[in-house]
Amino acid sequence: MALVEELRAALGPNAVLTDTDVTSAYQRDMMPLAPFGTPLAVVLPTGTEQVQAVVRACAAAGVPIVPRGAGSGLSGAANAVDGCVVLVTTKMNAIVEIDADNRLAVVEPGVVNLDLRGAVEKNGLFYPPDPSSYDWCTIGGNLSTNAGGLCCVKYGVTTDSVLGLEVVLADGELLKTGRRTVKGVAGYDLTKLFIGSEGTLGVITRATLALRPLPQAPVTLVAAFTSTEAAGAAVSAVVREGLVPSLMEIMDRTSIEAVELYLKTELGAGPGCAALLICQSDTGVETGMRELAVIEELCRNAGAELVYATEDVSEGRDLLTARRAVLTALEVYGAWLTDDVCVPRTRIAELIAGCERVSAEVGLRIAVVGHAGDGNMHPTIVYDPASEDEFARARKAFDDILAIGLGLGGTVTGEHGIGKIKREWLEREIGPVGLRVHREIKRALDPGNLFNPGSMFSL
Amino acid sequence: MALVEELRAALGPNAVLTDTDVTSAYQRDMMPLAPFGTPLAVVLPTGTEQVQAVVRACAAAGVPIVPRGAGSGLSGAANAVDGCVVLVTTKMNAIVEIDADNRLAVVEPGVVNLDLRGAVEKNGLFYPPDPSSYDWCTIGGNLSTNAGGLCCVKYGVTTDSVLGLEVVLADGELLKTGRRTVKGVAGYDLTKLFIGSEGTLGVITRATLALRPLPQAPVTLVAAFTSTEAAGAAVSAVVREGLVPSLMEIMDRTSIEAVELYLKTELGAGPGCAALLICQSDTGVETGMRELAVIEELCRNAGAELVYATEDVSEGRDLLTARRAVLTALEVYGAWLTDDVCVPRTRIAELIAGCERVSAEVGLRIAVVGHAGDGNMHPTIVYDPASEDEFARARKAFDDILAIGLGLGGTVTGEHGIGKIKREWLEREIGPVGLRVHREIKRALDPGNLFNPGSMFSL
Repeated sequence: MALVEELRAALGPNAVLTDTDVTSAYQRDMMPLAPFGTPLAVVLPTGTEQVQAVVRACAAAGVPIVPRGAGSGLSGAANAVDGCVVLVTTKMNAIVEIDADNRLAVVEPGVVNLDLRGAVEKNGLFYPPDPSSYDWCTIGGNLSTNAGGLCCVKYGVTTDSVLGLEVVLADGELLKTGRRTVKGVAGYDLTKLFIGSEGTLGVITRATLALRPLPQAPVTLVAAFTSTEAAGAAVSAVVREGLVPSLMEIMDRTSIEAVELYLKTELGAGPGCAALLICQSDTGVETGMRELAVIEELCRNAGAELVYATEDVSEGRDLLTARRAVLTALEVYGAWLTDDVCVPRTRIAELIAGCERVSAEVGLRIAVVGHAGDGNMHPTIVYDPASEDEFARARKAFDDILAIGLGLGGTVTGEHGIGKIKREWLEREIGPVGLRVHREIKRALDPGNLFNPGSMFSL
Repeated sequence: MALVEELRAALGPNAVLTDTDVTSAYQRDMMPLAPFGTPLAVVLPTGTEQVQAVVRACAAAGVPIVPRGAGSGLSGAANAVDGCVVLVTTKMNAIVEIDADNRLAVVEPGVVNLDLRGAVEKNGLFYPPDPSSYDWCTIGGNLSTNAGGLCCVKYGVTTDSVLGLEVVLADGELLKTGRRTVKGVAGYDLTKLFIGSEGTLGVITRATLALRPLPQAPVTLVAAFTSTEAAGAAVSAVVREGLVPSLMEIMDRTSIEAVELYLKTELGAGPGCAALLICQSDTGVETGMRELAVIEELCRNAGAELVYATEDVSEGRDLLTARRAVLTALEVYGAWLTDDVCVPRTRIAELIAGCERVSAEVGLRIAVVGHAGDGNMHPTIVYDPASEDEFARARKAFDDILAIGLGLGGTVTGEHGIGKIKREWLEREIGPVGLRVHREIKRALDPGNLFNPGSMFSL
C-alpha cells in the first residue's frame, strides 16, 4: 500500500504499525458502547514535522485520520474508523519549558497529566485540570475533550488553563493560536475553538498552559445524609452562601457500598446513609477549617446525620482515594457504563431521583457519583457484559439519563465529550441552527473531512 | 430608500435614524485614530426579533451592518462604514433573570456594566469584568471585545464569565450557544468564538453570565519606586511568590503628575518617584492584610522607597479613583491616544523603558498606566489635536509601542481589540496561517460579509 510506505519513509518503520494484533490496542477508548473500526495503520510521530507529513500524506491519499492520546476517553472520540490512520501522540511527550516567573508551561500533547503536575509542582506551581484518569491520560487528550475533573468547582476546566496552541491543519500547515501573555484579544479565540473539538479540526502538537500558584494542603470534610434530597439541599446551601470549596464530590449509596466492598474499609457512612458529600478547602488550615465549619453547619441544617472535618492530609487523601475508586469498585458487580450529565447545581437531587427511577425501570444497578460542586454527575450503570439483554437495557438507561439531564436544564456532557456515542444527542441539545454552524466551521477548516470523520456529528 | 422604509416598518419610525445631525453621534467610538464613515441609517431595535428583521432586510439589500453598544470602545470596531446600518443595542437593556442559587444572570446586550454589577450585588453576587468605562459601557460591547479591566489578575476577562449566548446570524437565524450549567462540552465552544469577534460574525442579543460570590471589602497597598525597573521587579516577585492580589496596577511618573494636577491632590509618591504600584486583596481584612504584608516586604526588597497598606476602604477607593482618572487627567496636557499592549509579566519594566525611548524620539509625552498583575499596559500618548504634525508623531509612537510589545513576546491588544485601528497588526501577530483561518471562519459564518466588513481584517 503506497500510503503505508510513504508513512514509513517519513516516520521510520517502527513508528508505523499495521499488524492487527498490535493495532487492535489502538482501536478504541474506554467507552464500551461506542462503535469502532479497523485502522489501516497506527502511526506514532515524534514531532510536529512528522505530524505534518502524516496529514499531508493522508490528505493526498484521501485516508481519514483519527487523532488519539492515551485512549482514556469515555466517548469513543478516539475510536478508529475502518481504513483510517490512527495518529497517536504519546511519543510527543516533552515538557518543553516551564516559565515559573510567568506561570506558564509549554508542552507536547503526549505528556501525561500527572507528569506535568509533578514537574510544575517542583516549581511551586499547579496545573488544575485533574480528570479521573490523570495518572495515565495525556494533555493532548485533555485538550481535545476539554477535560474536567475534581478541581473544576474552584479552578475550571482545561480550556481555562490554556494560553495558546500549535495545531496541524488539514492541509498540513501549522497554525499557532493564542499567546504567552495572561490576556490577549488579537483576533478570534481560535485556541478555545480547538479545545474540545475532539480531533475533528486538526492535530494539536503543542500547548502553552497557564499555571497557578500551588494551593495549600487541603482540609477535608465528609457529611453523611439519609436522603439524596438532603445532600442536594446542602450543595445548594453551600453555593448560596458564597463558598467556593476546592472540591465538592457526592457519592450515592450504591457507590459507597461498592467502594466499601472493594477497598474492604468502612467509610463511616452508617447503614441508613443515602449519600456522602466530600468537601475540601485549599486556602490554608486556619481559613480552610473556618470555611469547613460553615459548610458543616449548612450540612447539619440540611439534615446531615454525621459530619466530620479534619486537617489531617492523609485522612483527606484516603477519602479521595475512595471517591476515585468508585468506577473500579463497581466491577465487583459487573461491567460499568458511565454517563456524564451536568445539571444546574440546584437540580442534583432531582437527577439522582431520576436515576433511581431508571434503575428500577431497567432492573440494573445505577451508582451516582460526581462533582456536586459544579453539578456534573456520572451515573454509572452496572451490567453483565455477557448478557446482550442487560447490555441493551444498560444502553437504554444511558439514554434515559441523558434525557432526564436535558429536561432539568442540563447538558448531555459535562466533561467526557460527544465522540461517537452521543452524536444523536448533540443536535437534541444544541438544535438545528447550532448543528448547522458546527458543520459550517468543520467544512471551512477541514473541507475534505480528513479529521475524525463522523465523530461528534456527521457532515 | 426601500431599505429604510422596510426598517421603519419593522422597528417603528422612531427606532430608525437617518438625520445626519443625529446619526453622526453613532459614527465612531473613543479611538481618535480609527477611520469612520457615514451610515445610511442608525437603528435601535428593542428585541431579538427586531434584530433578526434588520439583519434579514440588510442582507437582502446588500447593506452592511455595524453592531454597536455604548460606543466606549478604543479600537474603532464600532465605527460606521459608508452606507452601512449601525445597529445599536442600547435599547435592549433588560436584566432578564438573576438566578442566585445557580450563580448566573441572563441579560440583554444593552445592559450597562455598572447596572449589572449593582443588580447582582444585591443578591450577594459579583460580575468581575470591570473595564475602565464600566459606568457607561454595555455588556454587549464587553462581550464583543472580550473586555478586561482591573479585575483580570484574579478573575480573568469577560470570556471567563460567560456560559452561553444568543446570536443573530447573517441569515437572520438565531443561534443559541453554551448552557446554564457550570460545565459543558457538547460540541465546539461557539460561545467563546463569538466573544471577542468584534461584531464580525453576528449580533449578540442575549447572554448567560456566570457570577461569583461577592468578595470581601478590599484592603489596599500602595508602593512608590524610584525606578520603573524596581517596580517591575516587585511585580515579578509577587508573581513568583505565588500571590494572587485582586488588583495590581502601575502608574508611571507622567501618570502620577497628571493625576495630581487634575485631582489637585498629592498621591504621596514624592518627587523622586518613577512608578507607583497599587495592590488590593479581597480575601477579608485578616488574610488580606497578611497578604499585603508579604507584598510590602517584596516591594521593599525590590527597592520601594515608600510602602503604605491600609484596611480603610475609602482610602483604597480614593487611590483607585486616582488610578482610573489617568486618561481624563492627561487632558490637562492635550488629547490622548491610548495603546493596549500586553507583555509577559517579567517584561513590564522593559516595555516602560521602551515607551520612554519612543517618547524621546517623537518628542511627545507618553504616560504609562496599566494592569501590572497581568502585564497589560496602556501607554498613552499626549498630543495637540490641532497639530497635524503632532498627530502624525502620535500615530508613529502608537505603532512603535506595538512593535516593542510584540518584540517582548507580547500581544498588540490585551483587551481593547483590533477593530479598525490595528488591522495591519493582526497578521503581524498571528501570521498568515492564522489570518487564513480567520478568513475561513468569517466566510463560513458570514459569506456575504454583512457584519462589520473590513473591521479586524479584510476578506
